[in-house]
Amino acid sequence: MNILKIAVDAMGGDYAPKEIVAGVEEARDRYPEIEFDLYGQIDKVKPFLTTSDRINLVQADEVIAMEDEPVKAIRRKKQSSIVLAAQAVRDGEADAFFSAGNTGAILAAGLLIIGRIKGIDRPGLTTTLPVLNNPDQDQFLMLDVGANADTKPFNLYQYAILGKYYAQTVMGVENPRIGLLNNGTEADKGDLVHKATHEALANAKDLNFIGNVESRELLNGAADVVVSDGFSGNAVLKNTEGTALSMLKLIKQSIMDGGLGGKLGAALLKPTFKAIQAKMDYSQYGGAVLLGVKAPVIKTHGSTKAETVANTIGQIKSMLENHIVDDVVTYFGEHSDEMIAAKEALK
Amino acid sequence: MNILKIAVDAMGGDYAPKEIVAGVEEARDRYPEIEFDLYGQIDKVKPFLTTSDRINLVQADEVIAMEDEPVKAIRRKKQSSIVLAAQAVRDGEADAFFSAGNTGAILAAGLLIIGRIKGIDRPGLTTTLPVLNNPDQDQFLMLDVGANADTKPFNLYQYAILGKYYAQTVMGVENPRIGLLNNGTEADKGDLVHKATHEALANAKDLNFIGNVESRELLNGAADVVVSDGFSGNAVLKNTEGTALSMLKLIKQSIMDGGLGGKLGAALLKPTFKAIQAKMDYSQYGGAVLLGVKAPVIKTHGSTKAETVANTIGQIKSMLENHIVDDVVTYFGEHSDEMIAAKEALK
Repeated sequence: MNILKIAVDAMGGDYAPKEIVAGVEEARDRYPEIEFDLYGQIDKVKPFLTTSDRINLVQADEVIAMEDEPVKAIRRKKQSSIVLAAQAVRDGEADAFFSAGNTGAILAAGLLIIGRIKGIDRPGLTTTLPVLNNPDQDQFLMLDVGANADTKPFNLYQYAILGKYYAQTVMGVENPRIGLLNNGTEADKGDLVHKATHEALANAKDLNFIGNVESRELLNGAADVVVSDGFSGNAVLKNTEGTALSMLKLIKQSIMDGGLGGKLGAALLKPTFKAIQAKMDYSQYGGAVLLGVKAPVIKTHGSTKAETVANTIGQIKSMLENHIVDDVVTYFGEHSDEMIAAKEALK
Repeated sequence: MNILKIAVDAMGGDYAPKEIVAGVEEARDRYPEIEFDLYGQIDKVKPFLTTSDRINLVQADEVIAMEDEPVKAIRRKKQSSIVLAAQAVRDGEADAFFSAGNTGAILAAGLLIIGRIKGIDRPGLTTTLPVLNNPDQDQFLMLDVGANADTKPFNLYQYAILGKYYAQTVMGVENPRIGLLNNGTEADKGDLVHKATHEALANAKDLNFIGNVESRELLNGAADVVVSDGFSGNAVLKNTEGTALSMLKLIKQSIMDGGLGGKLGAALLKPTFKAIQAKMDYSQYGGAVLLGVKAPVIKTHGSTKAETVANTIGQIKSMLENHIVDDVVTYFGEHSDEMIAAKEALK
């Protein structure tokens, strides 16, 4: 059995370290091939640990808080759980890094400590979202959802390649349909960045590019991989979340205001609402992955609880077993001339 | 009584001319102070007209189709209903222009035929969206939602001023809270464009700028006026619409799959769902307004029916009676030195 080791930030997230430890223990029991290094203040972490089998506690004196300025925190808090865990991955002591902490700090640790894969300009943050009302598709992938605010066409072009690998190896989609998030479906839509990107993707040989997709159609399964600049990708991700939550809240409130008939209806529909809430909870599909760095770097919501931690460990396991990082390294190594030419052409 | 005249494109929209004519007749009956010039192919329009009181048919031989390339269509189809109606407004024969047709062509007609207000760099398209679950706020305004894909900080700064005027005069919000759509609430978030815009808005004297707002919080009423670049504003608008529709569809489908209890519950909740659908239908709040041109230019969804046409006429009436265009002209006239300085500073 090939043993995998995951470096976990035990101190990140609103319910850390308790829920992180519980999730790691759940994952440990699920996956006999995984070992964990749990980084944190041992006196705070240890009380929550039931059995230390395959879970190794590593002391980290400092904690990066949710409100810390990310790059500064990475540079100054050298003894923080995020920095030490990322260093362990960089040094080959662990295979992947997981945290539910400060998003910016996790991204900075991925970029500055673990480092970019050679040939990749800007790693991108990717999230899986649910597809609704479509029997043929359960989920889709979107990237970048916020690693880079200022995105160039060449970055978007590389996101398409990274997204393709992820969809194939982790989501099991054979020939993923790649769409570009844009303001209209016609080829000439969008700003200068998206027009240039559309042209580059349309001419790319290895990509199943289906053209522009509009944000209105994402939840209907417009594509398997939605390529987006980090600014509007982030806006669309947060908007989907916000609109779905507001709709559920509105419906519940309307029912409560709706008299006896409404309340009876609500009681009968309780299981339906529960199922919908679960469907919309995209954390169940795993964490956000920073694609383009030398090892899997995964973050989940600050509000993460044990079950999501365990599910995300499963996602990391799948990334490791499918050698997605190695495949990406190989691809960009073999296509370095092409990348240099593309970067030049997309300037 | 001050007579207002509105130039209406009778040929634009999926249900034109029938629903446009019906809507204009409804508006005519509601508002005794409004006269209409209805531009279109008279032989197609006339059969739907019940009484011609205060409705004047004007022959327009050509029609700009939904799929026509906007600027080309405006330049080549000189006898189209959109071009002729916009020219009538430009020439002072009518006070405002309304169409449910090709969005790009309407914007192009507004910009190229009616023309920008002096001092305004790029007019912006604005839409009203509902606020849910908030007893203190019914709706908010967002602009730009798609007039410009490539937006500069100076444009965003001017959108804030335009949005303030609209919220005050048409929505009746005394001191509108202005937020900047961005990737995080902290002042330093976003790409270079949004960072520069944040600084300019924070330093503006006459604006009640409340800082960055995230797309997740829009429907909760994060601001009265949400300033957005045309690319992400368009993406967020379409995403809100798409997510809300998908959620309603999912809930309905889940209920149908939920057996007898679910169906009974659904029957009891029918009025609730109807109310929600109405609340989410932002066309009831009126059309999208191109702010920054010399007369009110309003467009509605292609799927517009008579009632929305009539409501939108009411919105135009309010814009005209409150002299929003005159006020904006005065403001930018009086602040031209300030605008030149701001444009230079925000380069």
